[in-house]
Amino acid sequence: MGAAEETAGGETPWGEVTPDAARRLLVAAVDAFAERGYHATTTRDIAGRAGMSPAALYIHYKTKEELLHRISRIGHDKALEILEEAANGPGTAAERLADAVRSFVRWHAERHTTARVVQYELDALGPEHRAEIVALRRRTDAAVRRIIGEGVAAGEFDVPDVPGTTLAVLSLCIDVARWFNAQGSRTPDEVGALYAGLVLRMVGARDRRPGAAAGPRP
Amino acid sequence: MGAAEETAGGETPWGEVTPDAARRLLVAAVDAFAERGYHATTTRDIAGRAGMSPAALYIHYKTKEELLHRISRIGHDKALEILEEAANGPGTAAERLADAVRSFVRWHAERHTTARVVQYELDALGPEHRAEIVALRRRTDAAVRRIIGEGVAAGEFDVPDVPGTTLAVLSLCIDVARWFNAQGSRTPDEVGALYAGLVLRMVGARDRRPGAAAGPRP
Repeated sequence: MGAAEETAGGETPWGEVTPDAARRLLVAAVDAFAERGYHATTTRDIAGRAGMSPAALYIHYKTKEELLHRISRIGHDKALEILEEAANGPGTAAERLADAVRSFVRWHAERHTTARVVQYELDALGPEHRAEIVALRRRTDAAVRRIIGEGVAAGEFDVPDVPGTTLAVLSLCIDVARWFNAQGSRTPDEVGALYAGLVLRMVGARDRRPGAAAGPRP
Repeated sequence: MGAAEETAGGETPWGEVTPDAARRLLVAAVDAFAERGYHATTTRDIAGRAGMSPAALYIHYKTKEELLHRISRIGHDKALEILEEAANGPGTAAERLADAVRSFVRWHAERHTTARVVQYELDALGPEHRAEIVALRRRTDAAVRRIIGEGVAAGEFDVPDVPGTTLAVLSLCIDVARWFNAQGSRTPDEVGALYAGLVLRMVGARDRRPGAAAGPRP
């Protein structure tokens, strides 16, 4: 599944990882962790998948945990970038929230193999790396909470529990990585559009456009 | 985390598994799979956690996959029972959908260790067992789709995409198992109540009670 994933999306995944050997090892690690789990994967497995020797792996990564950390860090940086870009964008809170959900869903659908590793292997990180990732997750949470809070303050949204609704919105998007199937009937963009509409309903968005589906009915 | 989970909830988890040795091995397998992943766990690890010998394990389970299948089967049977009971219950579609979400969320919160194994290790099942579990998952999906479809037919709900919304509702509930923390600030019942309200919004439920939070505003 990794091979298919690497060609999906508009940009080159892992393009920030250089040199090429380090990138190939990272891609191999994502595939191995997704298939067998972090604890069942050895650095020898990863090197073998990348067509390299274990000694060549150690030039780039000192430990298996360093590989997981690198994957997790890049994944969380990307998630934060997507959500902060949406939060800081132009438009009403409803437009920014819909944009955040569409982009976040698209990433979890197109990069579902990576996203599963990022989401399910957090406990395998060392304490320092884990603390760093938890801090990034707090910031992604804050970006969505801010859009929802601004929508409430502007009278656009009706949300009795902003932290709880923020948690639910993020959770709904993240779980796309679990069930999304590239051979399934819905494209990443279609899931993103569906979910943006559902999330606008969750926040009780007033939709001023006549006949729009997302807002409450009269 | 398994030990805490085994005392949560109103009923004895794994009470259907007899004799006692078989139940202890199952509980040990859930904990080991959740901690290290299915592929990194050996039958020797499981026997050791249960305070038994590998030979004693083989009296009850021929393979590690048989243990995973038993866990997955019991978990999926329970999920189906919860959702069909709600679907067949009395009340309006909104009441039955809220009941389904509350019960399904409570199970995923209280039994989050088991639920993670059940949800994340599907690919490790053998082909026949996997087909059996996929069939059960189609029935849990159908139970929720039926409630939503009945709500639409009765004019209670406004849902442009019933299969997509069903998928989103189940996904939202299932992902509780990933993030729920027994030491966190919300109880399983509180998450269930929050999510029932959010799901009624997702389906555009008309709420006839004055001042109710779940329905669209006038």
